[in-house]
Amino acid sequence: MSTPAREPQQERSRTTRRRLIEAAVECLGEHGWSGTTVAVIAQRAGVSRGAAQHHFRTREELVTAAVEYVGAEQVTRLREYAGRLPSGESRIEPVVDMLLNLYTGPMFRAALHLWVAASADEALRSVLAPLEARVGREAHRVSVELLGVNESHPGVREMVQATLDLARGLGLANLLRDDARRRARIVRQWARVLGTALPEPGSAITRPTDITMPTP
Amino acid sequence: MSTPAREPQQERSRTTRRRLIEAAVECLGEHGWSGTTVAVIAQRAGVSRGAAQHHFRTREELVTAAVEYVGAEQVTRLREYAGRLPSGESRIEPVVDMLLNLYTGPMFRAALHLWVAASADEALRSVLAPLEARVGREAHRVSVELLGVNESHPGVREMVQATLDLARGLGLANLLRDDARRRARIVRQWARVLGTALPEPGSAITRPTDITMPTP
Repeated sequence: MSTPAREPQQERSRTTRRRLIEAAVECLGEHGWSGTTVAVIAQRAGVSRGAAQHHFRTREELVTAAVEYVGAEQVTRLREYAGRLPSGESRIEPVVDMLLNLYTGPMFRAALHLWVAASADEALRSVLAPLEARVGREAHRVSVELLGVNESHPGVREMVQATLDLARGLGLANLLRDDARRRARIVRQWARVLGTALPEPGSAITRPTDITMPTP
Repeated sequence: MSTPAREPQQERSRTTRRRLIEAAVECLGEHGWSGTTVAVIAQRAGVSRGAAQHHFRTREELVTAAVEYVGAEQVTRLREYAGRLPSGESRIEPVVDMLLNLYTGPMFRAALHLWVAASADEALRSVLAPLEARVGREAHRVSVELLGVNESHPGVREMVQATLDLARGLGLANLLRDDARRRARIVRQWARVLGTALPEPGSAITRPTDITMPTP
C-alpha cells in the first residue's frame, strides 16, 4: 500500500475495485437491487466476471463496499466544501445549503433502492442496517463539526439530527421531479431557524443557548 | 351511490375494489413494483383475475387508485386525531407528534417502493408524479389547518413544508430499524422550535410573528 509506484499490479487491482464499486452505484440507481448482480456490474465496469468475483464474492459484499465508498466520498466532499467557507456566523446558511442538498444526487437514488430492497429482504437488511447506522453517525459527526455547535447543549443534538433527516426527506421529494426551487426556500428558512435555535459558532461553549426549554 | 342498501351488486363492487386496493398496498410493500402485477394482487385479494381487470385494466391504474386511497386515508386519520386534541397552544406538540409519525407505517413503505420504481420508469413516473404532488399538497393543507398557522406570514409556509419533509426523512430512517425512541426526541425538540417560530394558534392573524428575517 505504501509504495504504489512499485506495485502496478496492486494499483491495477485498486482501480478495478473502484470501477466495480462505481458500476454498482450506477446499476443500483438504474435497475434496483433485483437487477443488480455481480455479472451485470462486472459487464458495466468492463471487468471479467472472474476478476469481479476475485474482489467481491457476492453482490452483498460489493454493495457493502459501495455504501462505504459513498459515505466516505460524502464526508470528503463535505470537508472540502467546508474548508472553502468563511468562518463565523455566516457559515450557517452555506453549511445548511450543503447539508440539505446532500441527498439529491444519483448516489442517494442508489442508496434508496438498497434501503427499499433491504426492508423486504432479511439477509440484505442484516448487512445494510449496521453499515447505514455507521455512515449516518459519520455524517452526523461531520455536520456537528461544520455547523460548529456544541452537542452538550440541550436540543442541539436533535436539531442536527433533524437537519439530516430533513435532508433525506428533501432527497425523496427530489426523486420524481426537480425540487430545487422549493428546496432553496426551505434552506433559507432552515438556516434562519438553526441560526436562532443553535448557539453561534465559536460561542457554543461559553454562551448559554436560547434553545433551552421554553416550558418546564 | 346514494342508496347502497338497494344495490347489493354496487356495494359488492365497491368492496371488491377496496380489497384490490388494499392488496396492492400490501404487495407493493412486500414485493416491490416489479413483483406487483394485477394477477398477484387479484390472488391476494381473493378476486378472479377477470374481476380485477374489470375494475383496473393495468397495474398503473390500480396503483393510482391505491395512492389516492392512501392519501385520503391519511387525511381522514389526521382529521379524526386532530378532532380529539385540546385547542390552544398545547396542540403543537401532539400535532407535530402526529405529523412526524405519519410516514412510519406499511403505507409509506409501499409508496417508497413506487417512488423508487418510478424514478427509473418513465411511464410510471408520468402517472405518479402529478398524483404524488396532489397528495402532498393535501397533506400540506391539512397540516396548516391542524397547526392553526397563517401562511401569509413569511417563513410559515416553509416551516410547514419542512415539517412534512422531515416526516418523510424520519420515515426513511425507520425503514431498516425501529427508530421510535430517537424520533420521539426529535418530535419534542421540533415542537419546541415550531412553538417559538410559528405564531400561536388563534393569534396567527393579529399578532406579528417572530419568524420574520433576522437579517436583511
